[in-house]
Amino acid sequence: MDNDKLEFPPEAFSAVKWNAGMLSLLDQRKLPREINYLNYDSASAVAIAIKDMVVRGAPAIGIAAAYAVVLAARTAWQDAEELWREKIAGDIETLAAARPTAVNLHWAIAEMCQAFALIEGNPEPVLLEMAKQIHKEDIAANHEMGRLGAELILANSQVITHCNAGALATGGYGTALGVIRTAFKKGSITNVFSSETRPWFQGARLTSWELQQDQIPVKLVIDSAIASVMESNKIAWLIVGSDRIAANGDVANKIGTYSHAVSAYYHGVKVMVVAPSSTIDMDIETGADIPIENRGTEEITDFKATRIAPNDIEAINPAFDITPAKLVDVIVTEKGIVHNPDTEKMLALFG
Amino acid sequence: MDNDKLEFPPEAFSAVKWNAGMLSLLDQRKLPREINYLNYDSASAVAIAIKDMVVRGAPAIGIAAAYAVVLAARTAWQDAEELWREKIAGDIETLAAARPTAVNLHWAIAEMCQAFALIEGNPEPVLLEMAKQIHKEDIAANHEMGRLGAELILANSQVITHCNAGALATGGYGTALGVIRTAFKKGSITNVFSSETRPWFQGARLTSWELQQDQIPVKLVIDSAIASVMESNKIAWLIVGSDRIAANGDVANKIGTYSHAVSAYYHGVKVMVVAPSSTIDMDIETGADIPIENRGTEEITDFKATRIAPNDIEAINPAFDITPAKLVDVIVTEKGIVHNPDTEKMLALFG
Repeated sequence: MDNDKLEFPPEAFSAVKWNAGMLSLLDQRKLPREINYLNYDSASAVAIAIKDMVVRGAPAIGIAAAYAVVLAARTAWQDAEELWREKIAGDIETLAAARPTAVNLHWAIAEMCQAFALIEGNPEPVLLEMAKQIHKEDIAANHEMGRLGAELILANSQVITHCNAGALATGGYGTALGVIRTAFKKGSITNVFSSETRPWFQGARLTSWELQQDQIPVKLVIDSAIASVMESNKIAWLIVGSDRIAANGDVANKIGTYSHAVSAYYHGVKVMVVAPSSTIDMDIETGADIPIENRGTEEITDFKATRIAPNDIEAINPAFDITPAKLVDVIVTEKGIVHNPDTEKMLALFG
Repeated sequence: MDNDKLEFPPEAFSAVKWNAGMLSLLDQRKLPREINYLNYDSASAVAIAIKDMVVRGAPAIGIAAAYAVVLAARTAWQDAEELWREKIAGDIETLAAARPTAVNLHWAIAEMCQAFALIEGNPEPVLLEMAKQIHKEDIAANHEMGRLGAELILANSQVITHCNAGALATGGYGTALGVIRTAFKKGSITNVFSSETRPWFQGARLTSWELQQDQIPVKLVIDSAIASVMESNKIAWLIVGSDRIAANGDVANKIGTYSHAVSAYYHGVKVMVVAPSSTIDMDIETGADIPIENRGTEEITDFKATRIAPNDIEAINPAFDITPAKLVDVIVTEKGIVHNPDTEKMLALFG
């Protein structure tokens, strides 16, 4: 089976696959124009793919990293069987450093590493089983979050989503888009506004594409039109994913989420954050301590090979922002829903 | 003198010029990569140039339309001297319909048409003098607004501007950027955040370029980062231009202005709208009655020849939004400043 150019039935695409002993990533930089899977047999190459956003979305990054640990273990084992736990350390470090904000990356790596001590012999089969389990559990969590979140959405609702928190950002089905999918199936959602999500156009390229495939009515708008969309339409919910949630319920998510949440507050639109519990970082007290990745300014000043801005212009390109818990109405996880999140309620989720 | 490719000293560029009997427009679609003037000798061609945004910015559109009336009168006179007032009607209508939101277009055309009855003989010299007068008065108004607005800006201020309300959007100097220029010269402004202004990138392409040329420190950010810029920086003012101001002080301006104004309200950032009195439409009671232009969705779904979004996706592309007067702290015109605008105060401005 030629894995580089898969046939494309909508149901078959998955951001992350394990295929013929290799990690296969749907190249999200090329979507929706090209459906192209890239295959990886080394952890360092996966780290670069994560950094370059071949794969993106906090849960999908975590799953890709889990499979990358399998690749790292294989290499280490082949290199020196007895010393694989030592040999793997560099790869683990490289993977963990690929992107700073999404905590799922660190969570998945930690899950994998916890098993190291117990493994006897070749680690690959055991670790592969674990990575597949993480992948499966993420899909299951998405469906459960979809079910829980959809219960909050009344009939005839119009909703807004930002960035892509869909099948492409997860093991499958999606977090925010999982809720939207389930609610649409129940007949509750009449329309979705997808903000294009500069600079990387996740809304324009990925979310609108996912929703289009599921025949969910979607209207694409620029990010700065969201406030006037809220002003001139009855919007029930702003529904987004997250890259890391602090112990107090502050939410790191794609830049623009905070802007939309402020507009939502002003217009009386409710805010739903949908994320698996692996996105919650109870070690971080508030959003102020979540590291925010600043990406290259060429993402703003250029479009592919075309320069937009003048030369030598200073630009700032934070990839995420922090939405304080007070602007969040509910956090939906697979473990349950937290209304008006605070530290106590977040703790209770894990109790 | 070859007018199509002028030499480029920064001081010399002007969005609109009258040159060798023709209207010369700096092609703003190509900025900042190419400095290219296009020459027009017919009003219908100018109408297309306005529609296609060769020239943009409410005051600049008004000035271009004034010169286009000169071209229309010349053609009409050449066609049938005695009947030029009848012959010109079609061109006037075409010009007026070029773009619906900016009222300066209609204002400038009306100013020109008022003189028709009094003109004897060839109308071109009289109308040309009038168009030049409108142009000169706009530049003078910008400097006066710059002076007035800058008085409101305290020392060490950081400000945000959206879209381009600069020299390129006016006869010269600029409205919002006129205030920023004057305040910077006085030493009051330490830094300007310019939001890129999707979909047309007026911030990235035009504002950052104008400010860079004047060596005013500017940081380019995506539109949806403005809320977090306000959250993490001490911002004194959001300073913007306008395309039409209703009698009650509601402000139509580039899409995204409302979003920024809502964020400004939430963060305690003051909002200054800078526009000549020709932008104020006392015939329109509130912003709800200002016609909002919806432009082609390819501005969102494509970047030049590159498709971004999936095929057949529905997009909405309103070019402007309405910021209600209650979110506006001051409207600065050449006639004076209106604080906390309402209908009474707006009326008083013309008293």
